[in-house]
Amino acid sequence: MKAAIVSIGDELLIGQTVNTNASWMGKKLTDYGIKVERVFTIPDMENAIVDTFNFCVDSKFDFVFITGGLGPTKDDITKKVFANFFNSELIYNNEVLQNVQRIFKAYNREVKSVNVDQALVPKEAKVFINQKGTAPAMWMQKNNTVFISMPGVPKEMEYLMECEVLPYIQNNYQLPSIYRKTLLTQGIGESFIAEIIEHIEDALPPHIKLAYLPSAGMVKLRISAFGKDIFEIKNEVDELFNQITPLLKDYIYGWDEDVLEEIVVNLLKDNGLSIAFAESLTSGYLAKSIATIPGASTVLKGGVVAYQNTIKVDVLGVSKKNIDEHTAVSEQVVREMVFGVQKIMQSDIAVATSGIAGPDGGTNEIPVGTVWVAIYFKGEILTQKFNLGEGREAIVLRTLRTVLNWLRKLLEKSN
Amino acid sequence: MKAAIVSIGDELLIGQTVNTNASWMGKKLTDYGIKVERVFTIPDMENAIVDTFNFCVDSKFDFVFITGGLGPTKDDITKKVFANFFNSELIYNNEVLQNVQRIFKAYNREVKSVNVDQALVPKEAKVFINQKGTAPAMWMQKNNTVFISMPGVPKEMEYLMECEVLPYIQNNYQLPSIYRKTLLTQGIGESFIAEIIEHIEDALPPHIKLAYLPSAGMVKLRISAFGKDIFEIKNEVDELFNQITPLLKDYIYGWDEDVLEEIVVNLLKDNGLSIAFAESLTSGYLAKSIATIPGASTVLKGGVVAYQNTIKVDVLGVSKKNIDEHTAVSEQVVREMVFGVQKIMQSDIAVATSGIAGPDGGTNEIPVGTVWVAIYFKGEILTQKFNLGEGREAIVLRTLRTVLNWLRKLLEKSN
Repeated sequence: MKAAIVSIGDELLIGQTVNTNASWMGKKLTDYGIKVERVFTIPDMENAIVDTFNFCVDSKFDFVFITGGLGPTKDDITKKVFANFFNSELIYNNEVLQNVQRIFKAYNREVKSVNVDQALVPKEAKVFINQKGTAPAMWMQKNNTVFISMPGVPKEMEYLMECEVLPYIQNNYQLPSIYRKTLLTQGIGESFIAEIIEHIEDALPPHIKLAYLPSAGMVKLRISAFGKDIFEIKNEVDELFNQITPLLKDYIYGWDEDVLEEIVVNLLKDNGLSIAFAESLTSGYLAKSIATIPGASTVLKGGVVAYQNTIKVDVLGVSKKNIDEHTAVSEQVVREMVFGVQKIMQSDIAVATSGIAGPDGGTNEIPVGTVWVAIYFKGEILTQKFNLGEGREAIVLRTLRTVLNWLRKLLEKSN
Repeated sequence: MKAAIVSIGDELLIGQTVNTNASWMGKKLTDYGIKVERVFTIPDMENAIVDTFNFCVDSKFDFVFITGGLGPTKDDITKKVFANFFNSELIYNNEVLQNVQRIFKAYNREVKSVNVDQALVPKEAKVFINQKGTAPAMWMQKNNTVFISMPGVPKEMEYLMECEVLPYIQNNYQLPSIYRKTLLTQGIGESFIAEIIEHIEDALPPHIKLAYLPSAGMVKLRISAFGKDIFEIKNEVDELFNQITPLLKDYIYGWDEDVLEEIVVNLLKDNGLSIAFAESLTSGYLAKSIATIPGASTVLKGGVVAYQNTIKVDVLGVSKKNIDEHTAVSEQVVREMVFGVQKIMQSDIAVATSGIAGPDGGTNEIPVGTVWVAIYFKGEILTQKFNLGEGREAIVLRTLRTVLNWLRKLLEKSN
């Protein structure tokens, strides 16, 4: 099954909006075993739309997923062009009209005639009701090509794809089975992973693929298998997963949709432990990241952002002598910082960070990217030095992820 | 002048990479007065590339900007297909080869034969050297359509576009003059701005356009003018700018590329003032945002993240009675928080935040989105209550921007 995506909207062409719909759909369709062979981004213009639709029929695409141009304003012309392309007339659809009325009622707003016209659909179209907005999805066919028109608002398109269109395709077409599992790693580079699992990767059959998806301090390793029998490929992927996991076990923090911050918050909750931070380099980012997880208030006591050295000394009790002798980016100083914040906050666990984010401030002895971290855990203070590369924001982000993964390992071990 | 963008790469179709190159180029080309009429995202396949190139010639596009598929590995086929399309042979280009050698020398790496082949270019191509990588930009023409092939690595493509290709086009083609100015506002919604400037917007001539670009707590208002005479349109835009500015003056924090955090840091530096934060709702985000600006260490003393109420009481000296009587999200509590942190950090300015980010914790009296802010400024404590809508992360981000803009106003007034 091969498909095209057609993204309609001037805002995409002038770069005002990034076409994230196309990448979302590309990912989703690939997951369902539908191969996306083209993305066309085109203006709200009749001839552009018709040319593209004709190309899709001529190219014998099985599916064409269209987004955008379904709003109630004059510049949105997709529906009219869509109906004309199939020589179909627009008629009012009762179910869509009820949905429009339901939505306006929920917001206590009056339904105007432009809103009623959202219920106009091509006579022959199969219609999928949009629970998240007024414009429905419309399904029409020409020769062997199915066209599905959807609104461009991401949450509306995503709802229609996930809850209506893709399930309908799955029930009515023969799609290959696909099974995927993603290993989430922290603290090891892409090329090092590749070296460790080279013998496994080289022996993979052609229907199983590995993909490396790197970001600051993290690499996601995705295993995908395609086949006829879902149980068979699931077994194959699970077996690979079990082969790879022990080889990378120090670095794997979770799989699939796991979020490192959430894992740490849940481990803290499960163990009934509170946490506090003394942040110089990360300057509040660690506390903020933990607070992003709903319910974090049960475990996060708070922290001290000790950006200037006077705060390290006056608030956290770091000795001025240690700063003078070893600089603020030193084992001695993070040790005193973590000791100080734990005492102040009376938390079960505490973390301190100090480092050089650059662009200035690096020296030959302590270059940009040098980061010292201390963790107070079960009455002990653990310290470690990291070299986290370049780029002010990247260094801070890598520090955050390094600290969170270290916390995860400590909490899992003590479980 | 009308153009197409051709983005080549399987990773774009399966949604592994979002096509930010296309939106970057769309924005840039629009800025230069070149109209982008299509973006084609296509796989690394010869027939897909050739079909798309032919369509561009048939559609009489003036320019086709191509990215991707120029790497040294086997799956990158753009250059071969590009040369074939023009019936051209690939020859070694000395200048490109020297650039490849220069880059490998800088990294102390050996030049392999696949790297030498980066210097192969179509015989008739105009070549632009890539200072940021090994693959050059190549310029060829068929009928009246110019094709420019560039690497897909964003920083390489951006370098080639900005420093080579666009200047070359500007010098050799007649482009319309364009002048743009963007007003940056905080604290006022899109529809309120539209109401205030309705009389101005209605009277705009067709060659001047207004665009609203909203994000959490902010709206950018872009004025664009197109014409033959750059001085004439610059005058028109400047005059509009001077008309609009006083109408929105409480909300405008800057223009064009200004960054609110940087404005605040610079105002603090100019006035020789230090700052500290007591953060509950924002939990370190304010301190972190200020620290994002290089050189922030001269003004940012630090802060206390007081997430749990015990920290507010024990560290900041908030009275338990006030929390019990008024809750932690109250004027009384932020007043005591800001007083406490200023005393601890001995900063010239201090800020405290407390609020309900949700999804839980809201009540009828203090619903989700309620935020109290206190600012200690010149010996006085100012307080204000805000209702900042819904969404855990959006509320925190709106709080951040609201606080920064408030600080900017205070600092500018006292200047």
